[in-house]
Parts: sequence; C-alpha cells; structure tokens
Amino acid sequence: MNTWNIIIEGFNKADITKHESIFSLGNGAMGMRANFEEDYTGDTLQGSYIGGVYYPDKTRVGWWKNGYPEYFAKVLNAPSWIGLHIKINGELLDLNTCLEVKNFRRQLNMKEGWYERSFTAMLPNQQEIQVKVLRFLSLRYDELGALRYEITPLTTEATIEIESYLDSGIKNSDANWDERFWNTLEISSEDNFATILAETKKTGFKVHTFMQNQLFIDNKALNISPKENKKENYIGLQYEVKVKQNQTFCIEKYGGYSRSNDCSTLSKSIALFDSLLENQREDWATIWETSDIVIEGDEKAQQGIRFNIFQLNQTYSGKYAHLNIGPKGFTGEKYGGSTYWDTEAYCLPFYMATKGAEVARNLLMYRYNQLDKAIENAQKLGFTGGAALYPMVTMNGEECHNEWEITFEEIHRNGAIAFAIYNYTRYTGDESYIKDYGIEVLIAIARFWAQRISFSAEKQKYVILGVTGPNEYENNINNNFYTNYLASWCLCYAAEQVTTLQKEDITKEETQQWLHIAQNIYFPYSEKYGVYLQQDGFLDKDLKPVTAIPAEERPLNQHWSWDRILRSPYIKQADTLQGFYFFEDHFTKEELQKHYEFYEPFTVHESSLSPCVHSVLASALGKIDEAYTLYLRTARLDLDDYNKEVHEGLHITSMAGTWLSIVKGFAGMRVKNGELHFTPRLPKHWKSLSFKVIFQGKTKEIKL
Amino acid sequence: MNTWNIIIEGFNKADITKHESIFSLGNGAMGMRANFEEDYTGDTLQGSYIGGVYYPDKTRVGWWKNGYPEYFAKVLNAPSWIGLHIKINGELLDLNTCLEVKNFRRQLNMKEGWYERSFTAMLPNQQEIQVKVLRFLSLRYDELGALRYEITPLTTEATIEIESYLDSGIKNSDANWDERFWNTLEISSEDNFATILAETKKTGFKVHTFMQNQLFIDNKALNISPKENKKENYIGLQYEVKVKQNQTFCIEKYGGYSRSNDCSTLSKSIALFDSLLENQREDWATIWETSDIVIEGDEKAQQGIRFNIFQLNQTYSGKYAHLNIGPKGFTGEKYGGSTYWDTEAYCLPFYMATKGAEVARNLLMYRYNQLDKAIENAQKLGFTGGAALYPMVTMNGEECHNEWEITFEEIHRNGAIAFAIYNYTRYTGDESYIKDYGIEVLIAIARFWAQRISFSAEKQKYVILGVTGPNEYENNINNNFYTNYLASWCLCYAAEQVTTLQKEDITKEETQQWLHIAQNIYFPYSEKYGVYLQQDGFLDKDLKPVTAIPAEERPLNQHWSWDRILRSPYIKQADTLQGFYFFEDHFTKEELQKHYEFYEPFTVHESSLSPCVHSVLASALGKIDEAYTLYLRTARLDLDDYNKEVHEGLHITSMAGTWLSIVKGFAGMRVKNGELHFTPRLPKHWKSLSFKVIFQGKTKEIKL
Repeated sequence: MNTWNIIIEGFNKADITKHESIFSLGNGAMGMRANFEEDYTGDTLQGSYIGGVYYPDKTRVGWWKNGYPEYFAKVLNAPSWIGLHIKINGELLDLNTCLEVKNFRRQLNMKEGWYERSFTAMLPNQQEIQVKVLRFLSLRYDELGALRYEITPLTTEATIEIESYLDSGIKNSDANWDERFWNTLEISSEDNFATILAETKKTGFKVHTFMQNQLFIDNKALNISPKENKKENYIGLQYEVKVKQNQTFCIEKYGGYSRSNDCSTLSKSIALFDSLLENQREDWATIWETSDIVIEGDEKAQQGIRFNIFQLNQTYSGKYAHLNIGPKGFTGEKYGGSTYWDTEAYCLPFYMATKGAEVARNLLMYRYNQLDKAIENAQKLGFTGGAALYPMVTMNGEECHNEWEITFEEIHRNGAIAFAIYNYTRYTGDESYIKDYGIEVLIAIARFWAQRISFSAEKQKYVILGVTGPNEYENNINNNFYTNYLASWCLCYAAEQVTTLQKEDITKEETQQWLHIAQNIYFPYSEKYGVYLQQDGFLDKDLKPVTAIPAEERPLNQHWSWDRILRSPYIKQADTLQGFYFFEDHFTKEELQKHYEFYEPFTVHESSLSPCVHSVLASALGKIDEAYTLYLRTARLDLDDYNKEVHEGLHITSMAGTWLSIVKGFAGMRVKNGELHFTPRLPKHWKSLSFKVIFQGKTKEIKL
Repeated sequence: MNTWNIIIEGFNKADITKHESIFSLGNGAMGMRANFEEDYTGDTLQGSYIGGVYYPDKTRVGWWKNGYPEYFAKVLNAPSWIGLHIKINGELLDLNTCLEVKNFRRQLNMKEGWYERSFTAMLPNQQEIQVKVLRFLSLRYDELGALRYEITPLTTEATIEIESYLDSGIKNSDANWDERFWNTLEISSEDNFATILAETKKTGFKVHTFMQNQLFIDNKALNISPKENKKENYIGLQYEVKVKQNQTFCIEKYGGYSRSNDCSTLSKSIALFDSLLENQREDWATIWETSDIVIEGDEKAQQGIRFNIFQLNQTYSGKYAHLNIGPKGFTGEKYGGSTYWDTEAYCLPFYMATKGAEVARNLLMYRYNQLDKAIENAQKLGFTGGAALYPMVTMNGEECHNEWEITFEEIHRNGAIAFAIYNYTRYTGDESYIKDYGIEVLIAIARFWAQRISFSAEKQKYVILGVTGPNEYENNINNNFYTNYLASWCLCYAAEQVTTLQKEDITKEETQQWLHIAQNIYFPYSEKYGVYLQQDGFLDKDLKPVTAIPAEERPLNQHWSWDRILRSPYIKQADTLQGFYFFEDHFTKEELQKHYEFYEPFTVHESSLSPCVHSVLASALGKIDEAYTLYLRTARLDLDDYNKEVHEGLHITSMAGTWLSIVKGFAGMRVKNGELHFTPRLPKHWKSLSFKVIFQGKTKEIKL
C-alpha cells in the first residue's frame, strides 16, 4: 500500500483488461487505456480516445418506439500512436507467447502523473530480455504524449528490430454494425517523424495522429534513418539495432493527436523527454496543491481518495466548454455518449471546490450551449413553446440513449441541471452566469415541467405520471417523490429568478402558473411510517429488507429477471434520499433520520453513484461507521473491483461522489448564508483530515 | 363488389406489395404471398411459408435484460417453387419495365379456393402479349400447389423462352443479422421434374422443394425435354417454343414442399390440373357448407365476413396439433413467432363452431405439448415448483419476444390459455380433454399465479404488481383489473377441477391457498364512477375522450412518443372490457353498460383485436349502429387497409374477431347450462342472417 502510487505486481493474463483500465492515462483532452506498446495476442481492450471526437452510430433496438434517436453518438476509439512491433533476434515480443514472464510490475505515480511498466521475459527463442516503459500524457501540451521503452538483452547480444507505428485501422469493440468509423486520408513520413491524417465518418472530425522517434543505446543517441513501411491505415518506421548483452536499448516515442495542421512542428520541437517529464511533475504538483486530501491514520482510504482525485483530473481539465465528464472518462467505450446527469449532481461540486469558478462555469456553459438541442429534443416528445428536455446521455446535445423507460421517462435529469445553476451561484457567489446564460436554461426547464405535469381531478393536485427516478429499478411509475420535489423546486426557482432579473419577455401569468403548479404538486406520503414514499403504491410491495436476499442472488441485476426487480422494493441508488441530499436544509434531522432508516434497508447500491450519497447522509446522522463502510465502497470500487466490471473502464463520475463523502460527509461542509461551515464527524481511527477548497474565489485550508 | 370474389383491377406499382398480401394463398400446411411468377424488378415482398418450419434467429436488442430469450424463432421464408423466367423474342417479361400494362386484373375466388391474374403487356421490344395465370394450393394434398400460366403473343408470332425454376437462395427480409437460413443439400432433375433438398440452419428441418412442368400450345400437350440450368441454390428447366400470333402457349407447373422423400411420386402422379382444381372446388364447398355466413341486404359486410372466413381456413386446417395460427398466417414475416394469446382468446370459438371439437382440441393440445417449456420459461423468471408461464409469442414453446414490458409482464396470456380450456369444455361438452390433459395445464398456471401474486400489507389484500394488460398502451402497472380478475378466476377454476377430478397429487393445502388468494385479491374500483379501474391510479390521468385528439395525431402510435401514450388514458384494445367479454355472466347489464360507456370513449382501437370485442358488447347493450361500425372496421380492416399496413401481411387472428362480432354479437349466441341460446339484434338494413354452428357434436342451422 502506497498512498501516492498504485503498484500491482505479477503477470496474470486474466487481469490484463482490468489493469488496462486501472492504469489508464488522460490529460483532459485525450486519454488511453494501459494497452501494451508491443504486440500482445492475449485478451485486451484496445482504447485511445480524443475528447469531443465522436461518431453517430446507427441506433440498434429490438422494437422501435416513436421518439428514439436515429443515431447514437459514441465515444470513438481513435488511431493508436503507441504501438511498437519488437523482434529480438527475429522473434516477436508478445507476452502471451513468452516462455516466462518475471518481475512484471505496473506503477501509476499519481503525484507526478506517469505510468511505468517493467518485466523480464523469456522469449520462445530462449532469449531473455528486461523491459521498462515509462509513459505519460502531457498536461501542458493537450496534444502530446510520450513514452520511453527500454530493452536490455540478458542472454546474449541481440539484434533488435523495432517498428514504431501509427494505426488508423482501429474499430470500436461496441460498434453496432461492425463498421470502421475512420477514413484514412493521408499518410506521410519524414525521417523519424510520421503522421496519419484520418477523418471520422459522418461527423468529419479530421485528426492528425503523429509520432516522432528517437533511439538510444546506453543513453547515447543513435542516428539511424528508418525504413518506411506504409500500408492501408498504417505507417511503420523500421529500425534495426545490434545491442550487446546487458546494454540497454531505448526508444523514446512522442505522439498524439492534432486537430490543426501544425503537429509536425509541435512534435519535432519538443523531443526532450526529461524536460517534458519535469513539466508533468510541476503541473501535477499544481493540481495537487489545491485538490489533495490528506487523511492521517488510514492508508487505504488515503490511497483511494487520491486515485479518485487523480482520475477526475485526468478526465476533465475544465479548459474547454465543449468537453464534459463521461462516466468512463477516457478508460473505456461503454455508455456510448459522454455526458449524464452525473456531471451536475456529482462532479460539479468537486471541480468547483478544487479548480474554482471558471472551470465549474465551463460545465454549466456546456449545457447552455446545448439548450437549442434540448428544446428540439422536447419537441420530438410533443412539447412546445421553448420547453427543454436535456438528453439522458449526450455528446453534442442530441439524445444518445434508447430505452423508453430511461430516454423518455428519466426526466429528473432536467432538475439536476437547474439545481447545478443554483448550487454554482450559491457556492461561487458569481451572479453573472445566471443573469447572462443560466436564466434561459431555467426558463426552458420550467416550461418543460409546466407542460409535463398534469392535473389529477381525483387528487385535486398536480401529478407527474410515467417517470423513472434515479432508482432505475422502478420504471414508468407515478409521482416519484424525488422528481416531483425537484420539479416543484425548479418551477419556484425559475419564477424567483425571472422576477429578480426582471425578465420582461416572460409574462407574469406564466410565472404565476409555475408557482401555482409548484405549490399544488402531490407528494406521496405515508402517515404510518412518517415518510414520503418513493412513488405511488410503494407500500404495496413485499417490504423485506435487502438482508433477506440470499447472497448468491446479489447483485440482483445479474440474477433476477427484470420484472422481478421492478416489483421488488429494492433500490438501485439513492432516490428519495437523493432529494434529501440536494435539499439538506429543507428537512429536519428527524425527518432525515426517518427517511434514511426507512430507505437504506431496501437499497442495494448497484449503481456506483449510490453509496456516496448514503455516506454523506449517514455522516450527517452521526452514523460514522456506516458512513465509512459506504465511503470505502465508493473510494475503492475500481481498485478493489467490487462489481467485477473494471475491465470495461473506470467509474469516473462516481469518483466525485467519493470526494463528496469526505468533504460533505465527514467534514460536513455546508454553505449557509454565503458562508462556509464545517461540522466534522471523522471515523474514529482517522488522526486528521486536511484539504483545501476554493470558495468564492479564495482558497481556504481546512484541517480537522 | 362481389360477395364470393375479391376482384381488383388496374396496375399500380405502389399497390403491388399490398395486393401480394390480399391475394395470398394457403392450405393450412403452407402458404404464399401473391408474388408474380415471372420476373419483377419493382417493389415486392417475396414470401412462401411452410407451417411449423422456423429458424431461431439470434435476438437483437438495444439493452439486454435478464430473462430475455437468446434466440427468437422466426417464420421462415421458404424456397420458392413458382418462378418462371420468361423471354418473348429475347426480351425478359418484367411488368416493371413494360411499356404498357393493360387490363391488369386479380381475382380471388373464395368459394372455390383459387387466385387468377391476367393482363396485357407491351414489352420494351414492342411485342404485346396477353397473360392469364391461375394458381391454387391444394386443400386435398398438403404438399401440393399448382399454377397454369398462359401466354398469347398479340403482335407477331414469337419465340418464347421459359425457364421454370426452384430457388433456395432466399432470405427473410426481417433477418436480424442478414443471414441466409437455408443450406442447400442436393439439387436434381429428371426430365420435367426437379427438386432441391434444403435444410434449415440450426433447426435442421429438411424440405424437398419440387416442381413438375407440362407445356401446351392451344391445349395440345408438347413433348419437349428441357435443358437443365443448375446453379448454387437454384435449378431451372429451360424450354423454347415458337408460338404463332394469337396462339396460346401454356405451362402448367406443379410444386410444393415435402418433408419426406416421396415428393417425386406425388408430383408425377397427379399432373392433372383440371382434376386437381375440381378437388379444390369440392373441398372448399365442404368447408363453406359448415362455415359460411349469409347476410342478406349488405354486400360489403357479406364480402368482408367471407374474406375473413376464407383466410382463417387458409391458415389453419386443424389437422395437426403442432401447428397454430400466426397473426399474419402465411401472408407475411412480421411478428416473428407464430402463436399469441390471440389463438385462445379470439380464434378458438371460430374453429370450435365451424370445424368441431376435434380441430379445437388440437389447438388446446398445442399448449399442452408445450407445457414443459412453459415451466422452463417460468423458471427463467424465478418461479419454481412446476409453475408455468406460457410465452407471449412462440413457435416451439420457447419465448420469442424481447421487450421486458411484454415478455415478462404481459402475463394475462396465461389466463387466456386456462380460459380456453373452460370455454372448450363448456361449448363442446367434451370432458375428457380436461381430465387427460387440461388439468395439468390448469395446475401449472395456478401455481404461477399463486407465486406471482403478492400480499400488500398496506391494502391487506393480494395484489399483482408490474404487469401489462391487453391494453399495451400501459406498461408496468399495478393491479390491472383484467389480469387480477382472470388470475382470481384461474385459481378458483383450477382448485375446482382438482377437486372434481380428485387429483390426489395436489394437496388440499395448496388448493386452499389458491382459493384464499383468489377470494382476497384486490380490484381497483371507483365509487364515483361505479366502475372497476383498469389499474391503480387510472383516475389520475387527464381523462379527455379520444374525440379530443386532433385527427392528424391519429393513430397515436405513429404520432406520439411512447411516454406520452403511456401517461394518457387512451386504450389500445379492450382491457377491462375484455374481462366483461370473457365473463359475460358475471356482470349485470347495468354494470356492463357503465363500464362500456366509461371505457369506450378512451379506446383508440389501434390493435386489430379491439373493435370486435367492443362490437360484441355494443350488440349486447343494443347499441347496434355502434356495433355495426365497429364490425365493419374489423371485417374490412385489410380489404380497405384502414391501418396502411396490409403490405406486411393480413391480420389473420383478428379475422376470428369478425366472426365473433356476428355470431356472439349480432346473433347473440351464448351457452347457458349446456344449451345454445341466440338473442339476435341485427343491423336494421340486414334482411336476414344465416349460418351453421357445430355444437356438442351436432350441426345446427341458424336463420335470424
């Protein structure tokens, strides 16, 4: 256990894809899984990703429903620049076929932002070699990555043939129709430099993938010109070097992606590995300066939170308003589109407190810039007059999901987007965003609710029928407390802001109608239990706690048929309690306690976004042991692979939840009347907890 | 308008696929769309189908849910035997490229069971020819069809080259993965006879597709030997004949499918077109003898009901217990699997009354034979102890559908299967089926309900959560009245039959538990309206009648997004009223009237199975004009193409509903205490209504 490093030793073929995820690298603009540079014929999920470069894959469904998007923007596997074909005395290096692999070790240095892999391998031709590879993606130069690949022949002297290549003939493993998504336009090379210009089909993103190679023996630069090997979608630069026993051959390879045409200049001018690495150390130090959390007395928790903070920073730098935070970041293809309500509900507070208002504002601008598409999306579903429904999953503002019960019914996402505007304004003190941009979003969202909510003559109240709440183990339910509460809040907040900002284009009748609906909305409530009900009819379920389910039937989503899950009381992730989390000041501690104690026993936490919310609430209730258990489950979800799915990529957005468990949970951070308050309730064995937050433009040091 | 024939004149390329459906032929064992024999390069849906021959296509869904079937049995497009490539003086006959097509006429003679097509065409080479084709599928010989194709050159004498062929290189237009489903094993020919032995992939059905040709000029047989043209998946027999101007060349072609190896004998021995046609007339006369309905004073209604009765007989002969009635019969590929609850709920009464107990019993045996698979299907969803859930859609007993809200939740189908056993016993007086077979089905279904129903501590009643009723415009609802009522009835009926038949392997505790549940089940009810509610919360909807929807938004399923349909009160097909229809004696006329008048205004009848049920109930309430309007909508659904979907095939199962509208509706047929009663309420302009029914083994003539 090392609190600044993730170190895993031993070569196990079954773990390769899992560790490809864990050791992923990213710099906010691009990222890659920890694929091997050399050939590997074993199981692997190849992945390199460029922020904002996507492909609209044709939607595949069993049964079409009106309103489904015809295309589905997908994270694209990008051309690969890291590849090296390596032969030792004519034998291809492939760890899958080696006679023996020893001392295999991977290290992710989170403090400095680099990844190192080393091993000793006995090739089928009885040649033993030692290999060490250091790789990083530059924080300073968005478009640039670098790796240093060292080979030491241990058996005899060796002829090393090395072909350093770029490959644009890649596919997505999750392509719906098994298509290639890139067209190669141009391949060229000059001396040790090569580039492939490729264009995505349909979306037409043009990307130069480039590489620059530099060879050494025992740190002495070699001056050899390569032989070019140009094929369809491929260019290789071939070198052949004789290396003595125990001498170290090294290739330094620089590469990356450029959206403009100046990559050759960029690459050629910065071929200085050590100085790039020094930049990297400096830049990560700057990040850690404001974002580190120090836990004394708990190495496991310490390593966990650092891994989470590191990954969040690898995924999103906040420099660009067109980028956002995908649930898998740059670590896998899953979840097609990039942006979920996770960004607003979970990630925003982290970036706001560790990177400041400007970065957080970019996250809000992302949604503002997509408002027109959200209005179009609502129109497809029959809404009019500027009502907006933000998509459940999106890359460019268009909906990217196609399950009716999610796409059309999980509409609470609209509320989280409005809440984020409120949360941002409250925390940063920046009133200008809402005035210049946010108000438009709030109005469009309020208009959506005003149309989507209907009046029940039976109840003489406004109701919301046919929704899916955050708990996706219920579909097409009526009067989901969380959705109704959030909708009501949205209408009030929008009306209030329209009045404050004196928006003259909105009539008084309209805002009064919003308030009328908001004040007369129905909330299902049980007198018997003294709790709001997750939805109409919740008490008709067979209310056995989670503990009554045999262990071998967990997780439910892998063992129970969907209908059985739906009619059970089991809750995938915080739902009613998500409302209590957002609106912490609206409820008394007694109310919170009643609700927590009613819902927690039914909650299976089969979403990575669930334990953190319960952890924060458990802390507020002084249930610290419970809060700590839930915290660890979030913080080390991927490191300890709780859900056996790390091979598909990391759970990036839930990592922000880990941060919340500490800062909002154990530290008890709250904003009240424009001031920051802390109510620490630390796990007993923690000696201290210290971190910094940027609040209203100022950095505050917190030590608890 | 001709009450025994469907005649459509005029050549319109846009109507070709539509009329291919209307003029489909079938003999209960095989069937085919009215595709042209000669080449046609225009829009067409090629279709030949063999009863019981299917393929398990790999399921395609957007998002997998536990419990979905991995494969999806599909109606298979079978090798084609009707094809003729025809050249006139070297020019290919293709109506899509002809310079002019005149006098194009199609006639379906329903009385005698044949289809004729004729036209005059000017080919691109300025040759005008007259063509007449007669085709039928033999009722007497399951495996045999015949066609007579006559060509008369009108311009000059002509060289006619004709290649009569078999083609096993066909595909399904709805194949999920664009695969071919047949492997050709053997192709052979001998003189004018040829055969292709092909086998379906995976399911391994071996089928000999065969043909036998005979040529004539002006009725004089020609004795020419053909040239063989053998290719992959194809064999053609080529003939070349010189025909004088106005002479008539004719090819008689016999063909079909044999599952055994004796097709050559079969085909060679019966090459007598006219005697086969005479058989056909006799056999159809026998069918019409018991199944015709004569309506005096209404040609439109008369033609409609005959078309329906004709198609039902083309689809299902009742000879085989492994066959059933697909919603599209042999007229299209749609709806993948073959058997729905339509069979029990709609079709059984028709076959029972017009073909007698034996045929109806075969429909029940079909489900009995699939009981083991229904038990397996329930196991997949977590049920135990011999509980059975029959599939929503099936070919061989396995589930063939993959929408969770249907596959897992539309469980009322189980009730219809039990009800059919009751209905059969009541109507035929045959007590032996239930004793020997039916009781096993009833027990397994009762066990399913006993597990599926749960107890609501809140309501202190048994509830059924998370279902879809017959009205598929509601999904995942609680306490659907129809499902609850049917389940309760199933439990009582099974308990009663177990007692009557003294089934000693079923404990008294078990049947008492069934009765306990049945007697304490919850039915949502509105005091205000005095009606049972379709489901919990129905009154929370915005209860505007269908008449409030703008015409351009109908049908809803083509204009509204799915969530909007779900939260609306609009009813796709009879749901609560389906219960009133099944259990006609359980409710008073006042109750029926209240429910009919409550639900009919919300019913959009966007399922072909809906208007007939409402028609029967409207008749019972004396609302004869309304009943008649609904009747016509069912009876002429395909002939008048109300839903613009006839090109995909005919709505076979709803045709039985048309028969019900007359016999149970206008004629008011009921079984009471083992006797048949009629309460006629005819539309005013009908002079008389006469038909026969087979009741308890005896044929009764009814004239009203």
